[in-house]
Amino acid sequence: MLSQPVCRGFKAAGVAAGLKKNGNPDLGLIFSEVPATVAGVFTQNKVQAAPVRYDRERIKSGRCQAVIVNSGNANCCTGPKGIEHAAGMAQIMAARLGIAADLVLVASTGVIGEPLPIEKIDAAAPDLVQSLRPDGFSDLAEAIMTTDTVPKIVFKEGRISDKSFTILGIAKGAGMIHPDMATMLCFICTDVEISVDRLQNALNNAIRHTFNRISIDGDTSTNDTALILANGRSGVRVSNSEALQHFQPLLDDVCLQLAKMLVKDGEGATKLVEIRVKGARSAQDAHRIANTIAGSNLVKTAFFGEDANWGRILGATGRAGVPLDPDKIDVFFNDIQMVKAGMGCGKAVEVEATRVLKTPEFTVTVDLHLGNESESVFTCDFSLDYVRINADYRS
Amino acid sequence: MLSQPVCRGFKAAGVAAGLKKNGNPDLGLIFSEVPATVAGVFTQNKVQAAPVRYDRERIKSGRCQAVIVNSGNANCCTGPKGIEHAAGMAQIMAARLGIAADLVLVASTGVIGEPLPIEKIDAAAPDLVQSLRPDGFSDLAEAIMTTDTVPKIVFKEGRISDKSFTILGIAKGAGMIHPDMATMLCFICTDVEISVDRLQNALNNAIRHTFNRISIDGDTSTNDTALILANGRSGVRVSNSEALQHFQPLLDDVCLQLAKMLVKDGEGATKLVEIRVKGARSAQDAHRIANTIAGSNLVKTAFFGEDANWGRILGATGRAGVPLDPDKIDVFFNDIQMVKAGMGCGKAVEVEATRVLKTPEFTVTVDLHLGNESESVFTCDFSLDYVRINADYRS
Repeated sequence: MLSQPVCRGFKAAGVAAGLKKNGNPDLGLIFSEVPATVAGVFTQNKVQAAPVRYDRERIKSGRCQAVIVNSGNANCCTGPKGIEHAAGMAQIMAARLGIAADLVLVASTGVIGEPLPIEKIDAAAPDLVQSLRPDGFSDLAEAIMTTDTVPKIVFKEGRISDKSFTILGIAKGAGMIHPDMATMLCFICTDVEISVDRLQNALNNAIRHTFNRISIDGDTSTNDTALILANGRSGVRVSNSEALQHFQPLLDDVCLQLAKMLVKDGEGATKLVEIRVKGARSAQDAHRIANTIAGSNLVKTAFFGEDANWGRILGATGRAGVPLDPDKIDVFFNDIQMVKAGMGCGKAVEVEATRVLKTPEFTVTVDLHLGNESESVFTCDFSLDYVRINADYRS
Repeated sequence: MLSQPVCRGFKAAGVAAGLKKNGNPDLGLIFSEVPATVAGVFTQNKVQAAPVRYDRERIKSGRCQAVIVNSGNANCCTGPKGIEHAAGMAQIMAARLGIAADLVLVASTGVIGEPLPIEKIDAAAPDLVQSLRPDGFSDLAEAIMTTDTVPKIVFKEGRISDKSFTILGIAKGAGMIHPDMATMLCFICTDVEISVDRLQNALNNAIRHTFNRISIDGDTSTNDTALILANGRSGVRVSNSEALQHFQPLLDDVCLQLAKMLVKDGEGATKLVEIRVKGARSAQDAHRIANTIAGSNLVKTAFFGEDANWGRILGATGRAGVPLDPDKIDVFFNDIQMVKAGMGCGKAVEVEATRVLKTPEFTVTVDLHLGNESESVFTCDFSLDYVRINADYRS
């Protein structure tokens, strides 16, 4: 049993504002009782939603006391009106919370290209602020879901110099997931005290091997936003490299768990698969191949069919644009060797491999035998439900 | 009504050799009564099937009199034995046809990683040679099908200096289709006389805007092979640029029609969609964006759902890695404008757009308003049947 997900000095809330057609919660709020240090990472897509454009400017101050986030509408491709609405969301919350508007960041997720019904957010604002509670993060996690089937919260406690601190992260998927960066929305609260530069650096480090190492469908979002707020309320200062050695692994762990939750709950996904490429000349080569395999529709439909079709894995390996020697490649499904020196190991191992494929989580290892570098990417299978979900998304 | 697909001096055949589990035709042969000039283009995948490795060497002579091709087994990732089998296929045919083995090229398509049952090819060889007929190309087209639902033949007649010549092309898809190059197998016969260099050049030109401009599922094959044989039996010589001006457009046309047939018959496809990007700074930029949209699972599932979800088109446009101004972009479905200057044109046009999406062939145009270059890529929708076909492919 995990501890109750709370983080000193933070409150959160989630309510239904009528943005989702089905009446589910769709408006969330994070509030810190004091202005927090903030760092963020945003989508690399050239088409960026209004809230992303807004936050990129605001975050330069390094200070944030509240984050308002809605689902059901991405406020993207909405023109000058969209930017007004992003600023409007911040102003509405600032007024209700009695803080300066430039201490409020905003995020949106949902359908692209429809005007944000800001009046609904305005109408729901009093209820939202009233609902703020230290243990309100599960309501928040629910309010930011789109095609996610489960809310995603990770909570960790650590100790630095005999004082405890916490990191609490929530995220949502579940489509348009691919590096970089691969999380639709992620909000992390921590009660340590830390400088903006250190915090940004720690976030970048954590994301590199977590949110930037997952793939659901190869598309990337216009709204990707990961924010971390540090309010110092634990009295723990992360002010030197020793303290950082305690903080960074915990943050990495929070992000990795959230990243895996995203893939596991990927649209239509039934399996979580780690694609591990080893024996590469460089980490970049290993990443490129792992990413190509992780993004291959043919590989992913074979996973769904529980078919140990390693030929497709070699096919994807070969088109990654990395120089390699096909006659050296080994492939494993967990510890079952399927391919040795570029050739199949026969029908007998296929039975064993099929047993691996029937499990909900497994690892595919591709050993290039060219060097000592390795990288992993987490992916899911590609199911009939992915197509069903995405053929009908707006209707 | 097209003329009967024949090409002077060529014969073809297709028979069932027992390589496919369902007993369908799976072994094909092209034979020219005289040695022909030959040119070819092969997969760019680093993992290459044995027949591709074999042909790359053989084709250097520029001469070919027969092509033997099997479906049901890709002879890929089969090690030294695979190369022996590719050479064996050529030797078996050469002996039966009474020609030199180095005048025979080979091609294979089907499951990767299983040993080629060469004894079945040997056993079927007499029947195959006996079946050779000038009008045997439809049998051949059927014998090379894997997940294709229809055989693909295009036949064209042209005139140079008052003499007629013909080009006859056949191809197969229907998965692992993406540049470069995007045809699994394509064989073209023509009765003109032409030098090896001119022929290779003409093939490269034709493929650039046809087979290299289509996408079905983003994967590329280990077995892609396009061969063109020119046997000179029409008496038409393509020996100068004027003659080439008659030959090239006809060859382009054959390849374009075959390419579109491949996409239209893509695994599970119900729609053929031209993605046209215009107003780009360079043709390369336009191609890159068109290719990204054409490969987006989210765009393709929306096509399947007949949902005019232009937000996903902008999302894919933005992640193509091309500098652009999102606030300038226009998007059209056929002639229905959906997006003007980066913003949606409202609910009214969506009804009209949905009407376009319900047709089996349409064009999506993205105008960047940054320059004068344009490019097209042909793609299909992404249906439930794609997943069904590929989850069960080997079983």
